Amino acid sequence: MSMRVESDSMGTINVPDNKYYGAQTARSLANFDIGGEKMPKEIVHAFGILKKAAALANHKLGLLDEKTRDLIVAAADEVIAGKLEDHFPLVVWQTGSGTQSNMNVNEVISNRAIELAGGTMGSKKPVHPNDHVNMSQSSNDTYPTAMHIAAVEALENYLFPRVEKLRNTLAAKSEEFMDVVKIGRTHLQDATPLTLGQEMSGWVAQLDLAVQAIKVTIPQLKELALGGTAVGTGLNAHPDYAVAVAKEIATLSGHDFVTAPNKYAVMAGHDAFVGTSGALKQLAAALMKIANDVRWLASGPRSGLGEITIPENEPGSSIMPGKVNPTQSEAMTMVAVQVMGNDAAIGFAASQGNFELNVFKPVIAYNFLQSVRLLADAARSFNDNCAIGIEPDRARIKELVDKSLMLVTALNRKIGYDNAAKIAKTAHKNGTTLREEAIALGLLTGEEFDAEVKPEQMVGPLKLKK
Amino acid sequence: MSMRVESDSMGTINVPDNKYYGAQTARSLANFDIGGEKMPKEIVHAFGILKKAAALANHKLGLLDEKTRDLIVAAADEVIAGKLEDHFPLVVWQTGSGTQSNMNVNEVISNRAIELAGGTMGSKKPVHPNDHVNMSQSSNDTYPTAMHIAAVEALENYLFPRVEKLRNTLAAKSEEFMDVVKIGRTHLQDATPLTLGQEMSGWVAQLDLAVQAIKVTIPQLKELALGGTAVGTGLNAHPDYAVAVAKEIATLSGHDFVTAPNKYAVMAGHDAFVGTSGALKQLAAALMKIANDVRWLASGPRSGLGEITIPENEPGSSIMPGKVNPTQSEAMTMVAVQVMGNDAAIGFAASQGNFELNVFKPVIAYNFLQSVRLLADAARSFNDNCAIGIEPDRARIKELVDKSLMLVTALNRKIGYDNAAKIAKTAHKNGTTLREEAIALGLLTGEEFDAEVKPEQMVGPLKLKK
Amino acid sequence: MSMRVESDSMGTINVPDNKYYGAQTARSLANFDIGGEKMPKEIVHAFGILKKAAALANHKLGLLDEKTRDLIVAAADEVIAGKLEDHFPLVVWQTGSGTQSNMNVNEVISNRAIELAGGTMGSKKPVHPNDHVNMSQSSNDTYPTAMHIAAVEALENYLFPRVEKLRNTLAAKSEEFMDVVKIGRTHLQDATPLTLGQEMSGWVAQLDLAVQAIKVTIPQLKELALGGTAVGTGLNAHPDYAVAVAKEIATLSGHDFVTAPNKYAVMAGHDAFVGTSGALKQLAAALMKIANDVRWLASGPRSGLGEITIPENEPGSSIMPGKVNPTQSEAMTMVAVQVMGNDAAIGFAASQGNFELNVFKPVIAYNFLQSVRLLADAARSFNDNCAIGIEPDRARIKELVDKSLMLVTALNRKIGYDNAAKIAKTAHKNGTTLREEAIALGLLTGEEFDAEVKPEQMVGPLKLKK
Amino acid sequence: MSMRVESDSMGTINVPDNKYYGAQTARSLANFDIGGEKMPKEIVHAFGILKKAAALANHKLGLLDEKTRDLIVAAADEVIAGKLEDHFPLVVWQTGSGTQSNMNVNEVISNRAIELAGGTMGSKKPVHPNDHVNMSQSSNDTYPTAMHIAAVEALENYLFPRVEKLRNTLAAKSEEFMDVVKIGRTHLQDATPLTLGQEMSGWVAQLDLAVQAIKVTIPQLKELALGGTAVGTGLNAHPDYAVAVAKEIATLSGHDFVTAPNKYAVMAGHDAFVGTSGALKQLAAALMKIANDVRWLASGPRSGLGEITIPENEPGSSIMPGKVNPTQSEAMTMVAVQVMGNDAAIGFAASQGNFELNVFKPVIAYNFLQSVRLLADAARSFNDNCAIGIEPDRARIKELVDKSLMLVTALNRKIGYDNAAKIAKTAHKNGTTLREEAIALGLLTGEEFDAEVKPEQMVGPLKLKK
Repeated sequence: MSMRVESDSMGTINVPDNKYYGAQTARSLANFDIGGEKMPKEIVHAFGILKKAAALANHKLGLLDEKTRDLIVAAADEVIAGKLEDHFPLVVWQTGSGTQSNMNVNEVISNRAIELAGGTMGSKKPVHPNDHVNMSQSSNDTYPTAMHIAAVEALENYLFPRVEKLRNTLAAKSEEFMDVVKIGRTHLQDATPLTLGQEMSGWVAQLDLAVQAIKVTIPQLKELALGGTAVGTGLNAHPDYAVAVAKEIATLSGHDFVTAPNKYAVMAGHDAFVGTSGALKQLAAALMKIANDVRWLASGPRSGLGEITIPENEPGSSIMPGKVNPTQSEAMTMVAVQVMGNDAAIGFAASQGNFELNVFKPVIAYNFLQSVRLLADAARSFNDNCAIGIEPDRARIKELVDKSLMLVTALNRKIGYDNAAKIAKTAHKNGTTLREEAIALGLLTGEEFDAEVKPEQMVGPLKLKK
Repeated sequence: MSMRVESDSMGTINVPDNKYYGAQTARSLANFDIGGEKMPKEIVHAFGILKKAAALANHKLGLLDEKTRDLIVAAADEVIAGKLEDHFPLVVWQTGSGTQSNMNVNEVISNRAIELAGGTMGSKKPVHPNDHVNMSQSSNDTYPTAMHIAAVEALENYLFPRVEKLRNTLAAKSEEFMDVVKIGRTHLQDATPLTLGQEMSGWVAQLDLAVQAIKVTIPQLKELALGGTAVGTGLNAHPDYAVAVAKEIATLSGHDFVTAPNKYAVMAGHDAFVGTSGALKQLAAALMKIANDVRWLASGPRSGLGEITIPENEPGSSIMPGKVNPTQSEAMTMVAVQVMGNDAAIGFAASQGNFELNVFKPVIAYNFLQSVRLLADAARSFNDNCAIGIEPDRARIKELVDKSLMLVTALNRKIGYDNAAKIAKTAHKNGTTLREEAIALGLLTGEEFDAEVKPEQMVGPLKLKK
Repeated sequence: MSMRVESDSMGTINVPDNKYYGAQTARSLANFDIGGEKMPKEIVHAFGILKKAAALANHKLGLLDEKTRDLIVAAADEVIAGKLEDHFPLVVWQTGSGTQSNMNVNEVISNRAIELAGGTMGSKKPVHPNDHVNMSQSSNDTYPTAMHIAAVEALENYLFPRVEKLRNTLAAKSEEFMDVVKIGRTHLQDATPLTLGQEMSGWVAQLDLAVQAIKVTIPQLKELALGGTAVGTGLNAHPDYAVAVAKEIATLSGHDFVTAPNKYAVMAGHDAFVGTSGALKQLAAALMKIANDVRWLASGPRSGLGEITIPENEPGSSIMPGKVNPTQSEAMTMVAVQVMGNDAAIGFAASQGNFELNVFKPVIAYNFLQSVRLLADAARSFNDNCAIGIEPDRARIKELVDKSLMLVTALNRKIGYDNAAKIAKTAHKNGTTLREEAIALGLLTGEEFDAEVKPEQMVGPLKLKK
Repeated sequence: MSMRVESDSMGTINVPDNKYYGAQTARSLANFDIGGEKMPKEIVHAFGILKKAAALANHKLGLLDEKTRDLIVAAADEVIAGKLEDHFPLVVWQTGSGTQSNMNVNEVISNRAIELAGGTMGSKKPVHPNDHVNMSQSSNDTYPTAMHIAAVEALENYLFPRVEKLRNTLAAKSEEFMDVVKIGRTHLQDATPLTLGQEMSGWVAQLDLAVQAIKVTIPQLKELALGGTAVGTGLNAHPDYAVAVAKEIATLSGHDFVTAPNKYAVMAGHDAFVGTSGALKQLAAALMKIANDVRWLASGPRSGLGEITIPENEPGSSIMPGKVNPTQSEAMTMVAVQVMGNDAAIGFAASQGNFELNVFKPVIAYNFLQSVRLLADAARSFNDNCAIGIEPDRARIKELVDKSLMLVTALNRKIGYDNAAKIAKTAHKNGTTLREEAIALGLLTGEEFDAEVKPEQMVGPLKLKK
């Protein structure tokens, strides 16, 4: 492998010739051979926006000349476009401030800009990684800023559309099945009836609540640390820089980021991630409940509940037709569990700041972005491969409702509580239906029973006499 | 112990004569001899409001006569006032729907109302626990409603004022110490200076963010399940009941509760508690960071950082003056850890609903309300016994700033980067101050050094020339 | 309330006359008005043993005279017997070293001993809380020692017998139902058969594994910090004291405690609790699985799986017979969730030690002992109120097995894979049984089918020809 | 991309020609486009061993001919050697039984074996993925077996050596610095002295306890599910197969695996992973404490504790010498946090089994193996890049000890408690040393003071007069 020499304040080090990164990235690779989890690509992308915004703002404030600005912008655009992913090799388990990933970005943009300018990589001329690319910045304010940009983009661009799609599928199904009367279940025990559409409307409402819960946390993520520099005071930054650079980031990203009113809080704490992760956990809890309901309702084919059918996407059993394993539910519930684990890590990490810095930034970013990605992907997968194909087994549903003992409550008005209970007890004992025992006990004729016991009239509040 | 006979659908059972509760409570006591954690008193209080509201609404809807309403209201008022706490003996670890606690309330109100009416306890006349006190209700919709009432009251009436008080104390201290220039610390290493007031402003901002994070979750807690009855359909309830009873609860509690638009979601999921608990965890993370900063800054008296002093509330060491153990920080950080554990339990529990019911309600309520109570109490205790007495050790702070090597950055403009670095390196090597080495190296006079190196000018962005 | 004056190194303070505690306890009550969770009584009990053992050891080493020893022992015996519980009012959320609870014990034993000696409470004569009761000790080594004693006693004396009882009940049921052939279920879908006894044997094995998992962690809990005194060096303690006092504790408690080979590790870390709590979580996971299986198998009475029945302990529904809510399963699964939350708190807390001390001791003890208590109580309650009454619904079980499509695999040898699959597919499509379709398709007679398809021969490995 | 046709029971599907996997893998890729976390390579490696062992055992039991055995063994050896990693593209978030990864292995071994035999890939001849590679197996028993093999190998081959290395480094340092007397710290406050070697011996002991805690859990991981087939009964397996195949696995892996006495427990629960993960969390807690101690002791260079120095591996600050960011501690503590989050996920997942299967297997394997990998790598990195270079700053340590006020306790015997306290109080008030005030107060001469106050005599129990 052809190598070139790069340098930093500790001296020189060899770097592969076909990589844009420099000395500090190379040192980090050597010093942190831990796991294999790469710095999330969403963070790299956010850093591209950040570095471009900083160059634009520094230029507007008279600190950076036009030519250098343009070179940085050109290189940053390639980072944003995802063209340079091979040049960001660092892992999550590095310095807790994310300094090395910030330097990785500085080095890549510097060297790519130098290349664009026809210069010599590693020369730091005409675009210096620190003096130009990192101008008016510190790792301590850039990395948390990249975390916030990445988080907002992941939520608004990636998660919400995918959850919305699932929600809409379920809402349409709920409408479609609004008249399918089925047995209700509480404590896993038979209860009074409701419709399949009503049951599914609960799923939709849970998703709506969860998405809303996430959305209300986003304003805190839109407040950026950039401008705080090393310890939050803004030392060495132009007094108008913080506001200006947040504005550039807002323009570039299309999300209304602003500068954080207090920089100390957002560099030394990452509490906003705790709140949003809590809301992601709310979504995970809702999805777990939904996925569990789906697989239980689809259980069978003969010895389960069997009230719905779901798409068969892969072989369940080579010989047994009808064995459709609810694999999408399984993937979804595993994702839900993962999100809960990630949330535990995030809360712990966020609590561990000291003085002017929290040095658990990469682990927070890693867990948070994994949660978002998994929830989004699982929602899409569950929608496309399962939810769109949910169909009621109307015969089975009707069978279960018809033989339910809970319908006896409808007879209270006609024959009194005691007689109604007598019918139910006899049916339970004999394993018969309420109708059979009502007739056998001579309390009602079949016609009378049918006139009174109408499950479809038990799925709402009392009908008032008009 | 004098006993009386109470009965339910399973038969009769003896109950202590001096207790208002009835058969179902007695059975629960016998069947659930698990731990000793009582159903939180906030839940009992909320049930008092709920039962009163239901009686008022049922009366207005023409379902309950005035006399029965008044008896229920009178008994419920005693529950609300906390006069009947001895009559709610059930533990958290009971049926997962909280049915037994709902029945406990029904029985107590019934028997107390009967007593008020001069009747015979256990006779269920003239006020029947099910027919009257539980009218238009089911455990499945009352218990989650009580959870929501209790949660909102605990947050708005109890938590927020206590956190606000701490926040205001810290804000006042921040103002007071805004000019006390101290060393900054990142990675636990010396960094550029900031003021103690700035540092503390970060704490205030963290608390403000956390409280805001909790507040935005409250609307979901203000949506009530009541009116859903057994499975969410509202079976057997008056069609106007759900809206009406929520309105009564709002009036009685002073919080703007409304009926939940979808009852299935709030009976089968308790996702809102996950979101709010996540926000409580955000507060816990912030408080942990603050409490850790306080105890580290107060560490010493000789071999620690020693930049602040905190009140001495109890003997630290019998012989060593100045050993002030940061016990309030210790209590606070233990509380933070507990809140994180509780949050894990809540997320797990909320994900485990099936079909029309989540049967992990009491464990959610228990953990959630403990978190709120502990955070509130710890905030108050930390405020009263620690924060109000935080004082800077100005001499120590000055000493550390003065001998800091980070101030050398102020010399870059005057003598160039290389000379500045030379001073710092020599001072580090010799264990001397920058000033001493600047003079010794002949680079600046003492006067010149003092004119350039002014920590108090390093605590903000660049000053622009006007 | 009648008060007396007590004093410590900070001065005097009023204390209720009917309490044995002294000044430091009174200060803690005033300074830590947080939550209401009392220091676990198991800790107080353990402290009783500890103080008695220390007095005995100090006497044997010639440091404490016989009379003082006897007075301390007499008072400590009352603590051990649980006679003085009202005198330990402190909460968990105090100093993180548990110092105040150690002093609470010292004060109570001192004053009770003084009372026994006919002295004046508060006079510290003839038994001084520090000089005598706390002789050769520091809070830093006593509190963790009390944690270890309490933990071992709670596990060995309380938890294991209760879990063992449940395990034995299930083992007996497993034996009893070893021939009840039922449908297996994987992915919630019908699978090949097994017997109910086999299924339950899995539960027994899970419990055995979990108990074993806990047992292997106990040796670490049996290593005691006592003798480390303030920082682990044993300063001011007799060189033979550590070994001697551990031996006394072993004798008094009946558990083979030893002195920890390294005191620094067990005062600054409480890692052993993390390991044991992890094993408790293993038990919680097993119990959750078992309790879930039980409630699903008992689901119904008509629209669930309905393969077993469980005892009816309280009214399920006033009108619907057969609605037996699985409330013991619900309590058990809530306990499992709580144990998982507690485990999260314990792991976090144990990681937060600094230098010579971990100051999260009370929160670790609180969560750990709650986990043990809840698991033990829930196991007992589940055993007594549920497991002992589990009965198979043999008719239902047979019905499900008979109509299962999975049995078709038994026909492969006789009619070939393709014909077997054809039968199953047709039966699935028509909602008929395999037998019906086998005959209808002309592939086997009813007699031939019955001869081949014997579920009871499908519940083990291949039978080899002898 | 050149494609070939593969088939399964659902029909045909195109597969890249340069991949050995077949139809079911291709379907999984299409159906589970979730996240990017690949099935851990440790699992694939373990499957290689498992498939080879099954072929050997099946042959020995007369079920598989020699030629087919040899082909399977040859292909499996390549899987074991890691030569076929590109052919295992599936993600963690798939079917919860890991079926698709089991089939992935079956397909790859089948096609590679076919290739070795000169056959046509996809033809399933002469080596069929199900009939031959999966002979006597089910996903339900193979995947958990692979989990156990992977776990034991990761712990014994990978984790323990790396932790041991760190432990040995610290033990050597502890020995080396056994006479360096330093100030002790409890509650972050100055306490009585100990030696740096003693302090570090606590770290060593914590690591020893943690490793021991993990080791005692391993026997449960060495019990294998293989032989249980679909539901644990061993249907279709040779009665001697379970024992035989476990023996083959033991031989191939070099770890003493045995067949699980109860297959139901280890297919429907994965409780053993909960226990071991709890022990990994114990290790994480210990490492977090150690890494925190290291970075605090190395804090400075001027305004921290500064008692030790650690290697400088990357630029800390470009201008400030001595600012060595404790980046290895930061990576380590982030890893500890991650392990705690993973543990939460594992506990949750393991509790969610139903009947004959737990379908959270991949998420358990993923989290568990990540924890092991991260702990091992971080231990190695921390050892090589930090621990080996820890050196005491003897001057600083001495300075802190000398000015400590805690040493005054040594004067009690000579001048009495009250005079000693007077010296300490005066020194604290005046900011002077004990020695200075002792002389100033006329209580001792400098020589007398020096003769009495010897910190090195305060680092152990009382010296007994011989």
